[in-house]
Order: sequence, then structure tokens, then C-alpha cells
Amino acid sequence: MAGKAPLVSPLAPAAFPALPAIDGVRFAAAEAGVRYQGRLDVMLAEVAPGATIAGVFTRSATRSGPVLWCEEKLAALRDGEPGGFAVLVNSGNANAFTGNAGRTAVEATASAAAETLGIPAGHVFVASTGVIGEPLKAERIVAAMQGLRDGLAADAAERAARAIMTTDTFPKGAVARVELDGVPVTIMGFAKGSGMIAPDMATMLVFLFTDAAVARGPLQAAVARTADATFNCITVDGDTSTSDTLLMAATGRAAMPPIADAADPRMPVFAAALEEVMRDLALQVVRDGEGATKLVEIRVTGAESAADARRVGLSIANSPLVKTAVAGEDPNWGRIVMAVGKSGAAADRDRLSIRFGDILVAEKGWVAPSYREADGAAYMKRAELVLGVDLGLGTGEATIWTCDLTHRYIEINADYRS
Amino acid sequence: MAGKAPLVSPLAPAAFPALPAIDGVRFAAAEAGVRYQGRLDVMLAEVAPGATIAGVFTRSATRSGPVLWCEEKLAALRDGEPGGFAVLVNSGNANAFTGNAGRTAVEATASAAAETLGIPAGHVFVASTGVIGEPLKAERIVAAMQGLRDGLAADAAERAARAIMTTDTFPKGAVARVELDGVPVTIMGFAKGSGMIAPDMATMLVFLFTDAAVARGPLQAAVARTADATFNCITVDGDTSTSDTLLMAATGRAAMPPIADAADPRMPVFAAALEEVMRDLALQVVRDGEGATKLVEIRVTGAESAADARRVGLSIANSPLVKTAVAGEDPNWGRIVMAVGKSGAAADRDRLSIRFGDILVAEKGWVAPSYREADGAAYMKRAELVLGVDLGLGTGEATIWTCDLTHRYIEINADYRS
Repeated sequence: MAGKAPLVSPLAPAAFPALPAIDGVRFAAAEAGVRYQGRLDVMLAEVAPGATIAGVFTRSATRSGPVLWCEEKLAALRDGEPGGFAVLVNSGNANAFTGNAGRTAVEATASAAAETLGIPAGHVFVASTGVIGEPLKAERIVAAMQGLRDGLAADAAERAARAIMTTDTFPKGAVARVELDGVPVTIMGFAKGSGMIAPDMATMLVFLFTDAAVARGPLQAAVARTADATFNCITVDGDTSTSDTLLMAATGRAAMPPIADAADPRMPVFAAALEEVMRDLALQVVRDGEGATKLVEIRVTGAESAADARRVGLSIANSPLVKTAVAGEDPNWGRIVMAVGKSGAAADRDRLSIRFGDILVAEKGWVAPSYREADGAAYMKRAELVLGVDLGLGTGEATIWTCDLTHRYIEINADYRS
Repeated sequence: MAGKAPLVSPLAPAAFPALPAIDGVRFAAAEAGVRYQGRLDVMLAEVAPGATIAGVFTRSATRSGPVLWCEEKLAALRDGEPGGFAVLVNSGNANAFTGNAGRTAVEATASAAAETLGIPAGHVFVASTGVIGEPLKAERIVAAMQGLRDGLAADAAERAARAIMTTDTFPKGAVARVELDGVPVTIMGFAKGSGMIAPDMATMLVFLFTDAAVARGPLQAAVARTADATFNCITVDGDTSTSDTLLMAATGRAAMPPIADAADPRMPVFAAALEEVMRDLALQVVRDGEGATKLVEIRVTGAESAADARRVGLSIANSPLVKTAVAGEDPNWGRIVMAVGKSGAAADRDRLSIRFGDILVAEKGWVAPSYREADGAAYMKRAELVLGVDLGLGTGEATIWTCDLTHRYIEINADYRS
């Protein structure tokens, strides 16, 4: 990374939000020297007994050791199991594609955190992000454990958010407050991710915390469904990490009877707030997309099914030709037609319509009579774009978010040598 | 296109091959001024009576008018139908997403060629490549028809190959000679394509000619199967044109009894020669990939099925992170692991092995003990790379060809405004 000043994405939010304390959660961060010196690179979150926890992970067939550990431990949890939880995360090394040594490193760090906090090792969830194929120096993380425990504080979420950054140009946090039957609860979280960057195997990591009381089953269901509608609807370069991890803990400290099942009338309210936080974080990841200068929302309507709509949206969002046209502020709607055509979704050229924001660009198999190229060109100069595609076939809808593809992406990913 | 000197791809062949005459085929090219002045932009191929013809086309759901016409006319042909064929191609305008006017333009040009050559309009196959969404000035092509007919010559294939270029940096031709039961036959063809380029909707067009006698059924089967193994195994940017067209005519002028069905023992010999020509042209398209500086062959073995192998190969070939690593001459095998993992194919991290040429890079879930980064880095400096991935699961194999992703790709596709 040396030799290039770290730039902050032009799409970054003005400031990191004030993340409120969540009753039952404490954070600490440390400089453990996992790979680099003089920067926060390990974070520990301690979740008090009585909490529930849920997670979703990368679908990659080459998942990292930490992901395999989390999946295994999450599946083994029993409802109402006593003891709190911990989330232990390092940056600098992804502990991915490290063979058996990867598993050993996970066990060493999870055990150290478990002993230090007095909880079972199976209650320690781990995530690693950074270079791959190199052994994780677990002993450095173990050595930092005592200091992490001593530093645990309810108001240290921003430090934790900074400790998990790798090539992110800004830390990412979000918060929502909502009342459940008159009881105020808070959902708060932070994330890292900005595509994949040489020589790192990038990763999207998301950690969410709430003081709401939600049983494991409905919490897991809400987290999975909401992740599908947010984090699984963003794409920077179509490349998928081996390490993507999203974990959410609900401490149950709010003065409310627990939400015991998904049919609870408070669940839609909770889920809406959860979606707000997740979407906020997901869009921050896109805003930090490598080389991004434009945030692009792709709204697909009129598809035969929601799955088809998603297929079209991702085909447009991942098309290098669409992404370079956006970078060049070129209202090249022909490339959108192309991406619709190649998506594999049902489409009829003559029913398709395309909009840039409110501007009708193409319809009925041809450019719209009212469309003026100058209007399209002016629209494309915005930093945030909405590209609308209506397939005219049914009621399937999807919204996908992406960024443009610029020289800076090539610089970041090709011009450095590992 | 103005303002940038046209560069020739550094991967271009040293010279255009000498394309031999094919008995029963004549070519002509003209400057019709379809879009640009002073360059060849229309080509006509006349195929004498007694020939058979076959074709494969883009699978895009937003296929262009010319593609729809060719599919329809090809399907309507009856075996042994009298009368020859024509192939009429223009560059400068793709006649795609032009609504009903697109069909009218196809009919006008096909009818003009039919009248001029004295064949049915349904025997005229058309293709168009260039800008999309603009009406094709069919009258300019019609006006050139008489001159095209007068210029028809057996040795004009290179002019024809040049007339169909848009943003190609070199014309693409290939030839193979083979004996079928002692009878020498020739397969010859030319192609255009180099990804997609602003403000054009790019297109891959391929036209093949042979003097062999092959009935329609087995010709179509051989063309489709061979296209799957060649043109459908290359990718520049993963984007699919609305206009891709491959047509092959067999004049039957060679002194041989016709190959009447696919079980004919001469068919494998013919098909092997056909594959040689198609692969040659397909690789020339990759060599002319926008901004390409490296030709990359991805050999996938050990997959559970051939389909899985293809999935893995395309996932690697279309990964912006793999393509930028290649551009940067970075032996970043972690990105290959990532691309395998995201492909959707069955994969086991601990059985996967990766090679750069003959260099074993990773195996058993980790970097190979014998691998030295310096060897990988030296290998990546080559202009032509072979990346080997063995999944260790079965016998499925596939080979995919691609090029790297460079600043020049962004320049070509983002820096011009339409």
C-alpha cells in the first residue's frame, strides 16, 4: 500500500455517526501488530449473558477457517444456553486458504478469548480480514487479549469499527431507534468492506447489536431476510469474498417481553429498523467501493418474478460496460439494453423501458420520442444516480446498488504488486 | 473515436493470413458511408447455388433485428432448396433497438441484395454492427448494391474482413486445409469483435466458408458444437452483444460425395479442421480485447462435470480482480481461489490445486511447499499465460480464454462520450 496516499472516497458520509451504547455490550480495540504496526487491528465485543445471536455468511465454496468455525458454533447453540458471547475480529490477515493451520489459529484465539472472558470457546465468534494464504500469527492476538479485556467499554464502538478496516477509506457505522409496544430499543452496528484489494482478499464484515429481546429463531430469520434485501443487493465488482460475515447479537436488556416468534406483531417494526441500519451500512460499503465516484441505484420493475428482477439488476450492476459508461458520465442506455438481454431473465425488447431518474429514455423497443441526449448527459453528471428498468412483463421488482468502474479501481487492483 | 490514435493490440498476429479462394464464393466490399466516410463499411458474400448454410446467434433476450431475421430465415430453409445465398454485412450501425424501423431496414437491404443477385430475399442473411438505437440508413446500403455486385471476386476476402471491423484494431482471418477421404477441402473465415466499445454496441461476427459438401443438418450440428467449444469459451468483459452472429456456408464444390449425416466417418476430420479455424478466430478476438496486454488460457480440470468446469473457468475469466491482477503481473493466486469459490460449482478448498503454467502454486488448501513467489512473479510477465485449476473432484474439464483488464479498457469505455 506504500507509495499511494490513502484517499477518502468522494462518496463518503460527512462524519461517522455517534454510536450509542447498547446495554449488555462492551467493545475494545488494540494494536496487536497482526501485520502492520501502529494501527488498531484487533477488536473484541463482549455480549453479556442472556443474549441471542444470529449470523449469515459468504456462500463461497472456499470459505475461510473463521467462517467455517462461526457456522459450526452457531449451528451447535441451544436455545437458552447460559453464558454470554464474544466477537473477536482481526484485520491484516484473513486466515483464508491456510489449510489446517487456519483451524488451529481460530481455536487458539477463540480459546484465549473464552478463558479471558469466562465463557465457552463455542460462544466466541471470530472473523479475520486481510492477506490470504499466509499463516495468521495467532499468538499476537492471544497476547493482546488481557489488554482487550481491561479496555472493554460500552462507548468504544467507533474504535472497534476502525480496528476492522483494511483498505476501507472510512469507518462505517449506523444506528436506528424504534419503539416496540412503547419500549424504546436501539439497533446499532458497524461494517467494513470496499471490494477486494491487492494484496488483500477483501471481505465484508458486519456486526450488529441491539438491546431488544428477540429469541434466536426469529432473530436469525429477520437477519437472513434483511441481509438478502440489503447486503445481498450490493455489488462493487461482482467478486465474492471467502470471508464475508454478518453477526447480530440481541442482549434482551430492554424492558420488554421477548419476541418469541416471527408472527409477533412487534417483529415488522423491529425488522424495519433492522433494515434501515443494514441498508445504511450496505450503501456505505458501495460508497467506499474501490475507485467509486458514483453511487448507482438500479430499480428493476415489471419482471416476471422477483428473481428475474434481481437477475436483471445484478447483470446491469456488474456489467463493466455499464459501469464504465457511468464513470464516463455517458448516458449510454444501449449498454443497459445489452445487460438486460444477457441476464438470462425473461425480457421483451419491445416492452422494455429505461429511465434515468425521472427521464424516460427508451420505450417500445426504441429511444423515447421525448428523450433528449442533453438531458441524459446532464443527469449522468450527478454523484448519485437512479437507473430504472421496467420490463413490462409482470410484477417482479428488485433494487440493486453499485458504483462505477474507474481508473482508480484498476490502479488499486493492478498497479500494486504483492 | 476522434482524438485517440487507433492502436494495434500488442497481442495481434504478425500479419493477416493469405485467405485462399473457396470455389463457389465471391466477396465484395464498398464504402457506403453508413456512418463514417472513407472507409469500407459494407461487405457482400455471394454463395453459389447448391450450397448449404448454418448459423448460431446471440442468446440475448434483446436480439437485434438482423439476428431475428437470420434466425427466422434459417429455420424456414428446406433441404435442397435451389438458389444460392448471400451474406450482407454493414459496420457503423448495429440496427439494434431500433423498433419497427429496424425490421423495415433489414427487409429493404435483404430485398435489394436478393434482386441484384437473383435469389430469394429469404436467402440473404444480414448482420449489422456499430452504434445502436439509431435508424440504419438502409438506402445507403441499397445504393451500394450494384457496385458490390460488379466488384464480386473470389480473392476479396481480406477486403470483406476489413469492411466488417468497427473498433477492432486488426482484421481477423483463419484458414485450414484438410483431406476428406483423399479429397482436399478448405475451410476459411473471418471475424470481427473486440469487446464492446463506446459509443458502439459491439458485436462478434463470424463468417465461414468451405468447399466441402456437407448437408444442412450435420453442418448445423458441427457449427453449433464447435462454436460452443470455441467462441462460447472466450470472454473479454462478460458482456454479451445483442447482435452476435456466426454463419457458415458449404458450397459443395469439392469433388466429394456429400457428408449426409453426423455419423459419416469424414465428419470428425472435417469438424477438427473447423474447430481449428474457429479457435484461431476466437483467440484473435480475445487478442483484440479492449485494452488487452495478456492472453490468458484458463484450464479447469477435475470438476464434478464439464458444466461445473466451465462455470469455474468463466468465473475466473470474468473476475475483475483476477483480470486486474494479470494486468499488474501480480501472481495473486488468492483471487483465483476466490473466483473458484464464488462460481457456484462444487469445490473443496482442501482438494483444489492451482498452477501458473507448469508451476505448482497451491494445493491441499494452502500454498505449495515448493512454490516461490519469485517464480510466480516471473511467470506473470509473459504475454500469454496458462492458469491451471484442478478441483480434485471428478473428470469435468473446460478451457476458457480471456484477456486482462487494464487502464486502456477504462479509457476506451469511459473516457469517450457518446
